[in-house]
Formats: sequence, C-alpha cells, structure tokens
Amino acid sequence: MLVATGRVIVSRCEEKQIRAIKRAVPKDAILQTYARAKIVVMKKKDYSIRKTGGKIGLLTAGTSDIPVAEEAKVIAEEMGCTVFASYDLGVAGIHRVMQPLKELIAKNVDVIIVVAGREGALSSVVAGIVDVPVIAVPTSNSYGFGEKGLGALMAMLQSCSLGLAVVNIDGGIAAGAVATLIANRAAKFRTNI
Amino acid sequence: MLVATGRVIVSRCEEKQIRAIKRAVPKDAILQTYARAKIVVMKKKDYSIRKTGGKIGLLTAGTSDIPVAEEAKVIAEEMGCTVFASYDLGVAGIHRVMQPLKELIAKNVDVIIVVAGREGALSSVVAGIVDVPVIAVPTSNSYGFGEKGLGALMAMLQSCSLGLAVVNIDGGIAAGAVATLIANRAAKFRTNI
Amino acid sequence: MLVATGRVIVSRCEEKQIRAIKRAVPKDAILQTYARAKIVVMKKKDYSIRKTGGKIGLLTAGTSDIPVAEEAKVIAEEMGCTVFASYDLGVAGIHRVMQPLKELIAKNVDVIIVVAGREGALSSVVAGIVDVPVIAVPTSNSYGFGEKGLGALMAMLQSCSLGLAVVNIDGGIAAGAVATLIANRAAKFRTNI
Amino acid sequence: MLVATGRVIVSRCEEKQIRAIKRAVPKDAILQTYARAKIVVMKKKDYSIRKTGGKIGLLTAGTSDIPVAEEAKVIAEEMGCTVFASYDLGVAGIHRVMQPLKELIAKNVDVIIVVAGREGALSSVVAGIVDVPVIAVPTSNSYGFGEKGLGALMAMLQSCSLGLAVVNIDGGIAAGAVATLIANRAAKFRTNI
Amino acid sequence: MLVATGRVIVSRCEEKQIRAIKRAVPKDAILQTYARAKIVVMKKKDYSIRKTGGKIGLLTAGTSDIPVAEEAKVIAEEMGCTVFASYDLGVAGIHRVMQPLKELIAKNVDVIIVVAGREGALSSVVAGIVDVPVIAVPTSNSYGFGEKGLGALMAMLQSCSLGLAVVNIDGGIAAGAVATLIANRAAKFRTNI
Amino acid sequence: MLVATGRVIVSRCEEKQIRAIKRAVPKDAILQTYARAKIVVMKKKDYSIRKTGGKIGLLTAGTSDIPVAEEAKVIAEEMGCTVFASYDLGVAGIHRVMQPLKELIAKNVDVIIVVAGREGALSSVVAGIVDVPVIAVPTSNSYGFGEKGLGALMAMLQSCSLGLAVVNIDGGIAAGAVATLIANRAAKFRTNI
Amino acid sequence: MLVATGRVIVSRCEEKQIRAIKRAVPKDAILQTYARAKIVVMKKKDYSIRKTGGKIGLLTAGTSDIPVAEEAKVIAEEMGCTVFASYDLGVAGIHRVMQPLKELIAKNVDVIIVVAGREGALSSVVAGIVDVPVIAVPTSNSYGFGEKGLGALMAMLQSCSLGLAVVNIDGGIAAGAVATLIANRAAKFRTNI
Amino acid sequence: MLVATGRVIVSRCEEKQIRAIKRAVPKDAILQTYARAKIVVMKKKDYSIRKTGGKIGLLTAGTSDIPVAEEAKVIAEEMGCTVFASYDLGVAGIHRVMQPLKELIAKNVDVIIVVAGREGALSSVVAGIVDVPVIAVPTSNSYGFGEKGLGALMAMLQSCSLGLAVVNIDGGIAAGAVATLIANRAAKFRTNI
Repeated sequence: MLVATGRVIVSRCEEKQIRAIKRAVPKDAILQTYARAKIVVMKKKDYSIRKTGGKIGLLTAGTSDIPVAEEAKVIAEEMGCTVFASYDLGVAGIHRVMQPLKELIAKNVDVIIVVAGREGALSSVVAGIVDVPVIAVPTSNSYGFGEKGLGALMAMLQSCSLGLAVVNIDGGIAAGAVATLIANRAAKFRTNI
Repeated sequence: MLVATGRVIVSRCEEKQIRAIKRAVPKDAILQTYARAKIVVMKKKDYSIRKTGGKIGLLTAGTSDIPVAEEAKVIAEEMGCTVFASYDLGVAGIHRVMQPLKELIAKNVDVIIVVAGREGALSSVVAGIVDVPVIAVPTSNSYGFGEKGLGALMAMLQSCSLGLAVVNIDGGIAAGAVATLIANRAAKFRTNI
Repeated sequence: MLVATGRVIVSRCEEKQIRAIKRAVPKDAILQTYARAKIVVMKKKDYSIRKTGGKIGLLTAGTSDIPVAEEAKVIAEEMGCTVFASYDLGVAGIHRVMQPLKELIAKNVDVIIVVAGREGALSSVVAGIVDVPVIAVPTSNSYGFGEKGLGALMAMLQSCSLGLAVVNIDGGIAAGAVATLIANRAAKFRTNI
Repeated sequence: MLVATGRVIVSRCEEKQIRAIKRAVPKDAILQTYARAKIVVMKKKDYSIRKTGGKIGLLTAGTSDIPVAEEAKVIAEEMGCTVFASYDLGVAGIHRVMQPLKELIAKNVDVIIVVAGREGALSSVVAGIVDVPVIAVPTSNSYGFGEKGLGALMAMLQSCSLGLAVVNIDGGIAAGAVATLIANRAAKFRTNI
Repeated sequence: MLVATGRVIVSRCEEKQIRAIKRAVPKDAILQTYARAKIVVMKKKDYSIRKTGGKIGLLTAGTSDIPVAEEAKVIAEEMGCTVFASYDLGVAGIHRVMQPLKELIAKNVDVIIVVAGREGALSSVVAGIVDVPVIAVPTSNSYGFGEKGLGALMAMLQSCSLGLAVVNIDGGIAAGAVATLIANRAAKFRTNI
Repeated sequence: MLVATGRVIVSRCEEKQIRAIKRAVPKDAILQTYARAKIVVMKKKDYSIRKTGGKIGLLTAGTSDIPVAEEAKVIAEEMGCTVFASYDLGVAGIHRVMQPLKELIAKNVDVIIVVAGREGALSSVVAGIVDVPVIAVPTSNSYGFGEKGLGALMAMLQSCSLGLAVVNIDGGIAAGAVATLIANRAAKFRTNI
Repeated sequence: MLVATGRVIVSRCEEKQIRAIKRAVPKDAILQTYARAKIVVMKKKDYSIRKTGGKIGLLTAGTSDIPVAEEAKVIAEEMGCTVFASYDLGVAGIHRVMQPLKELIAKNVDVIIVVAGREGALSSVVAGIVDVPVIAVPTSNSYGFGEKGLGALMAMLQSCSLGLAVVNIDGGIAAGAVATLIANRAAKFRTNI
Repeated sequence: MLVATGRVIVSRCEEKQIRAIKRAVPKDAILQTYARAKIVVMKKKDYSIRKTGGKIGLLTAGTSDIPVAEEAKVIAEEMGCTVFASYDLGVAGIHRVMQPLKELIAKNVDVIIVVAGREGALSSVVAGIVDVPVIAVPTSNSYGFGEKGLGALMAMLQSCSLGLAVVNIDGGIAAGAVATLIANRAAKFRTNI
C-alpha cells in the first residue's frame, strides 16, 4: 500500500502496535506517530501533503474528548486541510465558549467539528451561533445511564439547532473525513479565484 | 377528601373529565381549572392557601414544554410558593437565555425548575450559571432516536454542571413538589427573621 | 413573523391545519402548500428567494421515503439551493442505483442527501462511490426489530464508507438545513468567480 | 489550581493515582485521602472550610452502597455542611429503616440523600415519611436484568412518593453537590437569625 | 369446549366481545362476567367449583392495579382457592401496609400475590416481612422512563428480599395460576388431615 | 453472626475469598465449601440442619447452567429441603427431557426449579407437562443478541405454559429460597399427618 | 406491472384497500383475495403458476400466528411450491407437536417454516427433531416484557438447535420467499430425475 | 464421544485449550486445528468425511469478519459440503463485490453465506442479485451505537431483499449448519441423477 499510494494511515494503534510498526519502516519511508490520536502515518520520504486550502474549526467540551478530536485533526490535515483547534470549552461555563468561537468565525472556517461527551450540549450551543455546517461527534466519556456516549449521541441527534449532522460515538476519523469533504468542496472554488 | 382537607387536586384531567367534575362541585366549594396544566382544584369556599414565602424560578426551553411547566407551577402555588416563570428560552439562541436568568437571580429565588425536551441542554446551561439548586424536568417533546423524552432525560442525568437533580419525563408534578420542599425549607428560616 | 421576515415556513402540517392556515392568509401574502412534504410556506407577494447557486443531490431508497425527502427539498430550495432529486433507487437492485448517481455526479452537486428506511444500505453504497459529502437520513419505514427507523439509523452510523454524516430519524428538515449550509458554502466561492 | 483557590478535590482516584498525587504535594499544602470515597483533597495548610450550618442526612440501603455515599459526604463536608450518615438500612427489613430515620428527623436535617442499588426501594419509603426534600442516588450494585443500577434508577424516577429528585447512577458527587446547595440555602437564612 | 369440560374461561374481554358471548350462551349454561378483571366464565348450570382449601393473599399498591389483581383473583377462585384481597396499600405511606399484612398472616395464607406498578416497591416490603412465598406482578401503570411496567418488573427482579418470584407485566392470569398451584399443593396435605 | 445463628452462608465466593475465609474459621466451627455453587457455609460444630420434608426437583438445560443450579441446591438443602437434581436435559433433543421429568413426578416433588440459558425453552416444556409450580431461572449462558441471559428471561416471562414464575438472571439463590418456601409450606402439612 | 409480468401481488391490504383494488381489476384479469394473509393477487386470466415441485412444511404455535403463516403460504404457493400447513401446535402441550411433525417428515418436505410468538420455543423443538432446514418466524403475539415479538426473536436467535435461521418479526413474506428458494433449489434437481 | 461417532468438534477454543486437547489425543486419532476458526476437530485415523456434493458460497465484507466465516466453513466442510470462499469484499466499494459474486454464480452454489459487521449492507446487496437462498451472519465488528453487531443484525433483519434469513451475531457455526442442510438437500437430488 505504501508503494501504491506513498502513504499508509493506521488508526487506533496501541503502544505495542506502534513499536511493531516502527521496526517495519522501510528505508525510503518515515513514520509520524500521533500519540493522543493513536494514529500512525507512514510516508515515502518524498511524499508531501497537497494543501487544499480547506479550513476546519475543531472544539472539544472537555479534556477527555481530546483524543477523539485529535483523530479528526490528523485525518483532516493528512487530507490537506488546516485545522484550528480549541479544547476544553465546557458548557457548564457558557462564557468559556464564546471567545474561542469568535476566533473560529474570524478565521472564516468552512465547517466546525464539535467533540463532546456527557450531555453533548456544546454542539447545540455552537450550531445555534454559527452559520457554517457543524459536525457533532459524541464521545464515550460518560457514566451511568447514557454511558458509553449514548446520552451525547441522543442529545446531538435531538438538537434543536439546525445546521448540524452527527457521526457515531468516538467517530473522530468519520468526522475528520466528512468535514474535510465539506471544507475541500468550499476551498476548491475559493482557491480557484 | 374535600371534607377532610378542604381541597382536592386532580391532575392530567382531559376536557371530558373536567366537565364531569364541574357537575359534581358541591355548593360550598369552588372549582379552579388550569387548562394548560390539565389540573383541576376543588376547594371549600373558605379555603385559602397559606403563603410560605418560598420563591421558585421556572424556565422552559420551548413552547411545547409549557404544559409540563404549568403542572409544576400549579402544584407549587397550591403548596404556598410564589413562582416566577419565563417560557420559551431555547438553547439554539443562547443569548435568549441570559436576560430571563438574570431576572430570576435578581428575584433571589430559592430553586429553579428547568423544563426542556429534545436535547435538554438548557438545564446544563442554567445550572452552570446559577448557585441555587436546579430541578430538571425532561419532556416528551422529541422525535426519532431519543423520542418520548429519553434523550433529554439522559442528557440531564449526564450533565457536567453540578447542583442539578432530575425527575421523570413529563414529571411536572414531581418537580413542583420537590422544588416546593426546597423553597419552603429556605423560606421557613427566612420568614422567621 | 411574516411582517418581520417576509416569510413563514410551517412543517409537519396536517390537512386540517393547512385549511386553518389558508383562511388566515393576509391579502398581501400568498400560500404555497407542499402536500408530500407536509410543509406550508406563507410569503409576502413581493418576497423572492435569493438563489445561492448551491447544488444538492437528493436520493431515496423507496417510495415511502419520499415525504421525508420532500421536507429536505422544500427547506433547501427555500434557502436558495437547487435540488436534483431521484426517488426509489432501492438497494435490492444495485443496478438501479448507478445511473441516477452518475447523473448527479455529472451535475456537479456539492452534497448528496440519501433518504432510506429499512436497512438503510443506500447511504453506504452512495458514499462509497462519490467524493462529495453525504448526509444520510434514516426514515421510520421499517418493521419488527429495528422498527421506527432504528435499524437504518444504526446502519448509517456504522457505515464503513467515509464522508458521511447522519441526522435523526425522519429528519428531513435537519438534513435540508445542513446540506444547504454545505452547498451554500461551496457556492459562495464558486459564484464569486 | 491549588494556588488560585487554596484547594483541589480529585474524585475517583485509584490507589496508584493517590500515590502519584502524594509525591506531588507542595510544602505548604496537606493531603487528605478518603479511601472509601476514592477522593483526594489537597489544601493549602492555612485553608479552612467555612461551615455553612447546612445539615444533610445520608442513608444507604446496603453496605456496598457506602463508597457512593462517602463521595457525597466528602463533597458536602468540603462545601461546609454537616452530614449525619447511617448506613445499611435495607428495605427487606423495613423495621431497620424507622429508627435511623427518626434520628435524622430529630436532627432537623435540611435534605436527605438516599443511596441504594438493586430495587432502590429505600428512597420511596423515606420520601413517603419525611417532609424535607430527598435526593435519590441509584448505585450500580445490581445484577442480571436491571444491572449496573438501571433498575434502581427506573424505580427512583417512577417513585410514587413526592418530594424526591434523582441523580445519575453512582452519582455521589452530583448528589452531594445538589444537596449542599439545598442545605446551604436553608442554612443561609437560619444562621442569619 | 363447554361440552368437554363444563366450563370456558375467556380473559381480556372487551365490552363488545362480552355482548357477543352473551348472545351465544346455550340454554343449559350460565355466564359470569367479571367487569374489572375483563374475564367471562361460561359454565354448565350443573358445574360447580371444587374447593381445594388453598388460601391466597392478594395485595395491590394502587387502585389502578386492581384490574390485574382481579384477573388473578378470578383464576384462583375458579381453580378452587379462597382469595383474601386488600387493595391500594401504597408504599409512599408505609404505615398503610402493615395492618392488611397482619390480617393476611392471621388468615394463614399459603402464598401472597403482590400487584404493583410504578416503582413496584410493595413486593420487596411484603417479602421482607412474611415467610410464605410471594408472587410479584408488575403492572403497566407507570410513565416516562420505565413506562409500561418496565420499572416495576426490574425492581421486582432486583428485589433484595428472598422468597419472591415474578410473572410478566400485567400477568394477572399467570400469577393467579402459579399461586393456585402453590396454595393447592399446601392445601392438598392440609385437608388430608 | 456465627455466634448469633450458628451458621453463616456466603455466596459468589471466588477461590481467593474462600482461602481467606478458611483461615478465619474458629475452633468450634467447620467450613463446607461448594465449589461449583461458589458458596461457603460456616457452621458451629453442633449445628445441624432441621429437615423439613420439602421436596424440590431441579433441572438444567445445559452443563454450563449447573453452577447456578448448584446455588439453588445448596440454599434449599441448608433450609431443610431434599433436592432431586438432573442436569443437561437440553431442548434440542426433546426426548432427553421426558425420562428425568417422569422420575421427578414419581418422587412427588412439591416444586420444580428449571435452570436454562440461551432460548430458555425448557421451562415452558416442563411447565406444560407437570402440575406443580415451576420456578424458572434464566442464566447468562447466551451470546450475541439476547446475551447475558436476556433472551432466556424474556422467553420465560412470555411462557405460554401456566404455573410458572421467574427470578432474575443467574438468580440461583433467589430460586432456591422461593422454591424452599413453596416446598416447606406443603411439607409442613404433609409431615403433620 | 400486470401487463409486464401477468401478475401483481399486494401484501398487508386492509379491507378498504381491497375494495379499492376490486374496483380497478381490468377485464382480462381476475383477483384472488386471501383474507387471513391480507394479500391480494391480481392475475391475467391466462396466467398460471408454474409448479416447481418444491415442498414446504408450515407450522404455527398458536391460532393468532396464523395470519403471518398465511402470508408465507400465499407467497410460497405463488412461487410454485406446495405447502403443507398445520396450525396451533403449541409448546405448552409438547405431545401436540409430535404427530403433525411426523406427517411433515413423511411428506418429505424440503424445508419447514415455524411461526411462533410469545416464547417462540416451537422452532427450537422442531429444529431439534427434523433434519431439513427450519426458517423461524417470530410473531408480535406477545405482551409485557418482550412484547411485539422481541422475546420470540431473541429466543429463536439464541436457539441451541442447529439448522435454523430467522427472519424479522411478523416476516411472513420474507419467510415464504427464502423457504421457496430453498425448496425450489432441491426440487430443481429432484424433478430433473 | 470419539469412540461413539469417530469425531469430536470443539468450537471457540483458545490457544490454551488447544494445547490441553493436543495432549489428550489418543493413539488411534488425529487432531486438526483451525486457528482462525478457533475450532479443533479430533478424528479416528480411519474416519473420512462423506462428500455430499453440496456447494456453499461464503463471502465476508471485511477482513475482521473472517474468523466467523471460517467457523462456518469448517462446519460445512465437516458435514460434507464444498465451500467457495471470497473474503473482504466491502460495500464501500461496490465494484469489488460484483466479480466474486459472478464467480460464485458460475460455480452454481446452492446457498450463499454472507458474513458482515458494521452496517451489514453486503447481505442486502448480494441477496438482491442472486437467486439462491442467502444466510446472513452479523458479526460483532462494530463500534459506538450499534456495537457488538447489533447494527448489522438489525440491518439484516430489515433487509428489503427477499431470499435472506439470519442467524445470531457471530453465529458462524449456526450459519454453517443451516447452509449445509440447505445445500445437502439440493445435492441429495442432484447426485441421485
């Protein structure tokens, strides 16, 4: 696969697997490991990502949502986008949401990915404010009734805010991929100018 | 029961039942009907509610949540509290939440009841801002996955905001009753002064 | 609301409600009723939709999925997009999928909405072929285990195809709104040229 | 955080984490570890809890519910309340419930937290007797159908007794926080006298 | 069937069906209709129930549980048992439970059927006091989360009290049948004396 | 407890716990360990079980259901009953069921406990043949959809056969206790003769 | 469609729809209505079913399962098979199962469809005896926990008997179609002889 | 058992169990271990499988579905069938499905087993194309909402394609057994020619 496309992306890699992959890197290739995202990218040394100009905003509600967000980030960057990330905004303190959101809007992003566990309210709040599409990612950071991300998934699908679509629980890669398609579509015409 | 306590409260009364009750009102009693709350209160003419001084804030996310909120309101008022209600705040437009909330805080309420369906995010937002206890009531205003209020219930139980407890779906009466106990407890000592 | 914005959109209107609305149309307004979508749009006579240039593909698996698709179509058109719809493609006969899909690709749509009930497989098949974002809408056309659209929702969230995000069951309006944001974002830069 | 507020509270700490924290205690701070509650509190040496005068009753149905109850206790005490705890009352033997309940009533508590797993019946029984608000905490002490606390959560939300609100499964901290707000609200006016 | 066994029992009969059955009663038969139980028994005029001596206690938590209890009662009586019923004991008021229970114990019943909806706590309380087997019947009298009797079923299966077995939701006939087998087994030897 | 009642029964004991208990046996007591039932009984040396004369049949569908059955057996025997057990009857081969069932009937048992996982059909088959009460115990021996005993529990509660009541999944102790109450009730009068 | 293939099959037809279809029958066609199966077949007068020689056994547990069984029967017969049906075998009385089963075996059927609601045990019993493939159809004839056919579906998927596959709840047409493919496959080679 | 039938098949064998079995092989027997299927077959040296002539197609959607497919394969081959397997067809790339499917059709297989996790769409696609019966096996290869194979099971039961029946999640052995019965039934008559 490395030979065919010049790049291999492996997600959900545990420590042990990363070490095994490290030993298998060919001479003409390099290995990039993203610890928090648990993603490993092996590339031909002469491989370079083609920048598309797509711009993606990326927000998380809590610190424990960051690994899922990082999955989305790595995928989006590997597919040519620029990602503007701001982590741990919370909802319990709504005032912490506004500033990072304003900055994203100022950067004129094409789409915003919101990663949240527990009650997943951040995606509703964000989609109620911005006018770009929002991709909501429920994470499994939850407990008791609604555990394993079920509560966040339900809340996101029930969202009163329009302009929001959802991927599966902990679906960082799915979110990164669909956000990239959205951003790249916009960038394609923007960069034509 | 009317004879024993001077008052009968009947909840979840449909039109037809209200008409039947109307025909059965004794001479020395009067009937108060609360159409939106679907509650009927029959009282001896000489019955009067003892005001406790308890103060309850009452918020709904949407207009369709109002009947459940009105259930809570009638119960709380019959149990002697004063209720300050503000309906249809939404979450999609977070700015609409702030002003009514400030007014409630200014009124120094003892507890706030938040009634919300769909993703139920309003309760998290409110509990993140105020420092009085919040009673969250999920309503069955929802559709598809998480319908019948399941999504709102899960989101409220998963809430990251501390200082919040939950009653069952469409549990307006349960919310009114527990909020009244909370408010009356505070009022008991306040009015002693 | 009509006065403020020049247009009111009411969804999920039953026959009876439509008749009531018809009687309430002011002199300077007209009423458009979309029977299959159960949507009613009331507009000032001088109101005209601003065409954005956004292009949306719209596919359904079966004929019973059409009402939900039409919801999405009306919303998208009212928000300025052009919608290219092709209904009843099925999956049982995969060959019926290919031709309409080729036509959509030829039309260079910015995003494709796939509406499907039962096993919801059409969205996976479509997202596996195209390279624009896909918004999948599960419908409640299902029976037995997985009824009320649960099977389709699960299948869409589990999709192996990347580039796909999901809205709630029967969420035609949610799909129309997010697809419009995606298409309009692309169109904004395309039409700038 | 220690610098800013003088205190850090960390919940759900395992043995190993506690040891790590112990090694990181600054010179001017002390560490309190609550083994059963799995909570660690680090405080500046000159930090002292401001007693609010709030009084909380705390009951558990079984011995296995105690860790969750202790979570609530630590939080409530750190927030200034006095907690009167009585563990392992059961429901199978209803006579064991009455005596501890009478003692709590005699102590004039502002709110009672009831922690119970399995069928969670204790909260209904208690709320049927007392006239202060009850916060019910389902625990994951259950097995088979209704395991992981689901049965207790359902039973508590279905409770026929009025004056009761619920937090999530194993939500000792959530219960402690909301009970404290309730108790402190009452105490605020009581201690003003 | 009437010819073969001398008796036909039809359960879950609506008004309309009862009227139809009434018209079909042969000359040599009589019809007994149990309105609350929705059971109709058609018997040869010379048919008489053989009394077994089995004694069954029957309790309900609320008034809305009575139809299910009556189902059990009719079946048990038709199978030869004597049923001692006491309805609407509640759990919210635990004191209301004790007196009827003492009377059942005094009557030396062989088994007690407990019929309860909502949180179903009555069965746990009863089984914790008596030393005869308890058959618990959850009813569909519930709302919101745990509706349709699910909460009561879970609570009954989770019961900490030993000596209790459960039938399906609204399973009055199933409860009547198994309780009769238990009571008749004991009576068989008792009456042998 | 040993001092008070002369006997302590501990269930669900793992190897390690058994070893710990073994070291704690007082001089005047003995320890009986039931490996398959994972039950440990510690008794004063002069303690002897009072035989009640109650007779219980005990059947399992498969070999993996035996540990749960043994739980029931130990409890029933400790409470004075005689247990006639026959394991691994299956349902796939219905002919294997008949012979052991005939033997139980010949032994004139007062009640039959049926322990089964997977589809739990054995309890329906048995209750359709015998005329003594049947206590059905679903076990968690299952896989895929309906795993953890849910399928067996549902099937047992749905049983068309009358004369059957159910305990929770893997509820060997609950089954043993209720079956003992049933058998002892019958035996009480039988042995009076 | 009638023109193209000479036949139209419409399932799940209510009374009202059948009357509408009756009025629309062209002159050169006839209409066959299957009341219990709720299926209507419209055929060109010169259309005749090609008999394949496939032989299908068809069993139901109860009388209320017959409509679903009839769906399967009509489909199978329209696709050229001969169907040998025996209804209302029960499982509560296992002896009622054996005779009809022997007759099916004697008729040398290629496949057996078993239609059952409630606990769905008949399919396990049948598959444990015969050596032809069994298609199990759960029906929605059930109540309480496991209602709407969920219990039967789970039990059938959990079946210990090998040689059995399952279709969705009330899936008479699905069962008829797959059984026909199985029978026709065998018949194809049998009739070649 | 080895003595009685000449063969023992043990499924779901872990490494450790295989080693234990290896040590217990009698002199006159041999052991075949199928690592991917986790199946071990012990046979008398003179035991030989009787080829039936039954032909089974076997497809998987992904590589992680192979172990379940191999279970089916080993069982089918041990029961005398020939299995034509093609793994990792996917659905995301529909073009990858067509070629292997054409080859299976060319081989004139009697039945096709389709093994798929995630959204399980492959079975619908295959059953829509072929005219032999399809046995669909959902696997537990899934994540988030619909995890443990629930999404694939639902999708397969909801399939719009006729001619398809389903076994439980990860039910490779169940699928192998029922497919074998189907294939052998056809082969019996084919080989008679």
